[in-house]
Amino acid sequence: MIETSSSVTRPKFMRKGELTRAAILDMALELSSRDGLEGLTIGLLAEKMKMSKSGVFAHFGSREDLQIEVVRLYHHRFEQEVFYPSIKEPRGLQRLQGMFARWVKLVSVEIALGCIYISGAVEYDDRPGAIRDHLVAMVQAWRDALHRCINQSMEMGHLRSDINVEQMVYEIYGLILALHHDARFLKIPGSVERAQAGFDRLIDSYRNPQVPQISASAKTASSKTTKPAAKKAA
Amino acid sequence: MIETSSSVTRPKFMRKGELTRAAILDMALELSSRDGLEGLTIGLLAEKMKMSKSGVFAHFGSREDLQIEVVRLYHHRFEQEVFYPSIKEPRGLQRLQGMFARWVKLVSVEIALGCIYISGAVEYDDRPGAIRDHLVAMVQAWRDALHRCINQSMEMGHLRSDINVEQMVYEIYGLILALHHDARFLKIPGSVERAQAGFDRLIDSYRNPQVPQISASAKTASSKTTKPAAKKAA
Repeated sequence: MIETSSSVTRPKFMRKGELTRAAILDMALELSSRDGLEGLTIGLLAEKMKMSKSGVFAHFGSREDLQIEVVRLYHHRFEQEVFYPSIKEPRGLQRLQGMFARWVKLVSVEIALGCIYISGAVEYDDRPGAIRDHLVAMVQAWRDALHRCINQSMEMGHLRSDINVEQMVYEIYGLILALHHDARFLKIPGSVERAQAGFDRLIDSYRNPQVPQISASAKTASSKTTKPAAKKAA
Repeated sequence: MIETSSSVTRPKFMRKGELTRAAILDMALELSSRDGLEGLTIGLLAEKMKMSKSGVFAHFGSREDLQIEVVRLYHHRFEQEVFYPSIKEPRGLQRLQGMFARWVKLVSVEIALGCIYISGAVEYDDRPGAIRDHLVAMVQAWRDALHRCINQSMEMGHLRSDINVEQMVYEIYGLILALHHDARFLKIPGSVERAQAGFDRLIDSYRNPQVPQISASAKTASSKTTKPAAKKAA
């Protein structure tokens, strides 16, 4: 974002218009998290920003353009807080565990705010259009990342080689949806710990027993007994 | 519902006013499933019913009263289709499996319509009031039923006696939320099968090995090897 202008000597980090636009977008994300993307009104946004409606529209062509920019901003933050720190971790199970732990952390912060991806899924499941397409594409990108990470964990021998990856992604996603549901809607305490315990149980049942060349009957027994060691190794 | 009137000799099943009220409520549930409870407008409802707005209001005191009646109607249907047929099944694991299978069936029908409980959870997680209170109470009643059934399964020895019941309910709920999310929002085929496979895996990991008085190390091995037999018994 750092840029220089020919008219001034010292570098400017953001032009005033860009700063205003970013501030509007921040507020729009906050309001959308609370009221839903469809609940976002230019009127309330302008009021919160102490601007006129036309002042807000000057930065975004239309309400829909603004909503799409909100989805993009949320995705950018999700990448910064969950995806990028995780891909710095070693490939395989450790990275998958890091992805899940950061995701839980993000959603647990969002328990006060609401998650654009989760509320958006319900808002737009019956509402075709550009906003829905952007939401689906971004949720799908994250699922693809989980998919790749599970595949790598299988290739590296951390997880069993016969896993149905789509099934595992489905189950992981369910744990996160339940976290959002139970903590935000039912206000049940301990939901964050339940998400993590569910994930640990899930990983345990998909973990590679790491015992080569064993018979079928011995395999089932050793898959349990070697688990603590496998856990430490991962 | 059968009742007789003093002015007529043959029994009437429902008075005309009651029939109209029931028809309005049916349409209100259909519209709320599609647009959300908050998206329900008296204007559209009146239009669909070919009635005036005041005609609709004559049957329901307020929009909020109507929304609460919609929640009650949905709960009644949920009871009829999921709860009551399941409690006719033998106590324990078989009943729990029946509850889940009927729930999946209901949600899979609702993939075209939307589920009031699931969309309502996102609509009302940040919106206190009477509608939210009714939704929470009804979702909680269903979770209590699951809770009781898991407890009975433990008492009858179908499931392990050391299960954290809240944890198991959390994980089961997650599988259903993922079904609604994946099938309705992402339109991924095979989600119904994934919900069932996830439940089967979950039950497997919580199942009682049914081998009495065994040592800790033998237990872990036999919990795997006796599973097929336990499956048949349940």
